[in-house]
Amino acid sequence: MSAPPLSSTPRSTPNRTKHRTVTDRAALYEVLDAGLICHLGIVLDSSPVVLPTSYGREGDLLYLHGSTGARSLRAASDGVDACVTVTHLDGIVYARSLYHHSMNYRSAVIHGTATAVTEPEAKLHGLRVITEHLSPGSWDYAREPDKKELAAVSVLALPLTEASVKIRATYPGDDQEDIEANTVWAGVLPLVTTYGDPIPSPDLKTDLPVPQHVADRRYPTDPRLDASARAT
Amino acid sequence: MSAPPLSSTPRSTPNRTKHRTVTDRAALYEVLDAGLICHLGIVLDSSPVVLPTSYGREGDLLYLHGSTGARSLRAASDGVDACVTVTHLDGIVYARSLYHHSMNYRSAVIHGTATAVTEPEAKLHGLRVITEHLSPGSWDYAREPDKKELAAVSVLALPLTEASVKIRATYPGDDQEDIEANTVWAGVLPLVTTYGDPIPSPDLKTDLPVPQHVADRRYPTDPRLDASARAT
Repeated sequence: MSAPPLSSTPRSTPNRTKHRTVTDRAALYEVLDAGLICHLGIVLDSSPVVLPTSYGREGDLLYLHGSTGARSLRAASDGVDACVTVTHLDGIVYARSLYHHSMNYRSAVIHGTATAVTEPEAKLHGLRVITEHLSPGSWDYAREPDKKELAAVSVLALPLTEASVKIRATYPGDDQEDIEANTVWAGVLPLVTTYGDPIPSPDLKTDLPVPQHVADRRYPTDPRLDASARAT
Repeated sequence: MSAPPLSSTPRSTPNRTKHRTVTDRAALYEVLDAGLICHLGIVLDSSPVVLPTSYGREGDLLYLHGSTGARSLRAASDGVDACVTVTHLDGIVYARSLYHHSMNYRSAVIHGTATAVTEPEAKLHGLRVITEHLSPGSWDYAREPDKKELAAVSVLALPLTEASVKIRATYPGDDQEDIEANTVWAGVLPLVTTYGDPIPSPDLKTDLPVPQHVADRRYPTDPRLDASARAT
């Protein structure tokens, strides 16, 4: 299956820092797959509401855990206009000038109609995609949801049709005269996210071993600092 | 100055997991002050748009770097309806059941009218608050913005009037029969964010020392795992 390019509409085309925009679908997948939570934006009574939630990607479909925004989402059986944003902050960019201070980051912004997945088999599948994204290996290890539990969660589906990806992964882009002056240090302070040691729940009845899928988990950071990239 | 409690309106009162909601203003300050970026939601052509941006807090005013959403924000000289969300992900909660899998997090959701700060002195001040939040110590160290640079950035102000804070910082809240069965490990995999070693810009003319405000910077994480908190 060849992946279609990302669509380009006025709202998904940044009107600033265009050179940071990445248009291939592989970059979109990378940003989404490396994230753990997204920020889901909807319009509620004409006002924006932005809530953090978990998600998972399968091909060109994003599944979202919709319970946090369920009140408004339940009302819209034919779908709700949504914007989903995933952002990784990779570093603080210290420039010679305050103007060129910046951040290294990777972000994906997706626009589309999020629909509730209600058919039980499809909902269970969507929940599996979300769970395996948040905690890979858990689906086959932990107890599956029963009917009542499945009914109590909300799963949304959002097609990856209209999206934009922005990546900044380089050094400060200072003005030439500030560089020549050479009086101020400039560089990047990287942000590094890792997993700590697993902490067993105090209510474990015996000293159960930490399962491999938890013990072996590694955080997928890749703060590629590309000195050859054009800086701003 | 005694801080007023957070307002409680229908949209800022979560209708689910109420016990996770924190209503004191100190908690709001903590979540905001510990963050580096926020997600700014606005409504553009009736659709939600969620963009990551930097911010800084001064008392009960949040300043936002507004350039990313400038197109729509410039059009609204009398302010734009905004929702700003700051989220810290502190851990993955592995439960005995998939239903009780969860995340430990701290989040703040702020609703209000964001107005552009245009008066030069006020704008410079707002920019200072944002810069000192993103890179403490830089304002007095790096070159200040000149008039042209100041004109090229956009600063927004959003009052901290209507906000909600949610915190989950505990172990899985499994069902009693799953706990008694004692066949599945349960616990928390903490997420730890730190700063790596500063990376000097390759275009430094000489080997300038890393300034103290960069070298000494520590990431303000506090993933308080409270076993006594009520879990869900």
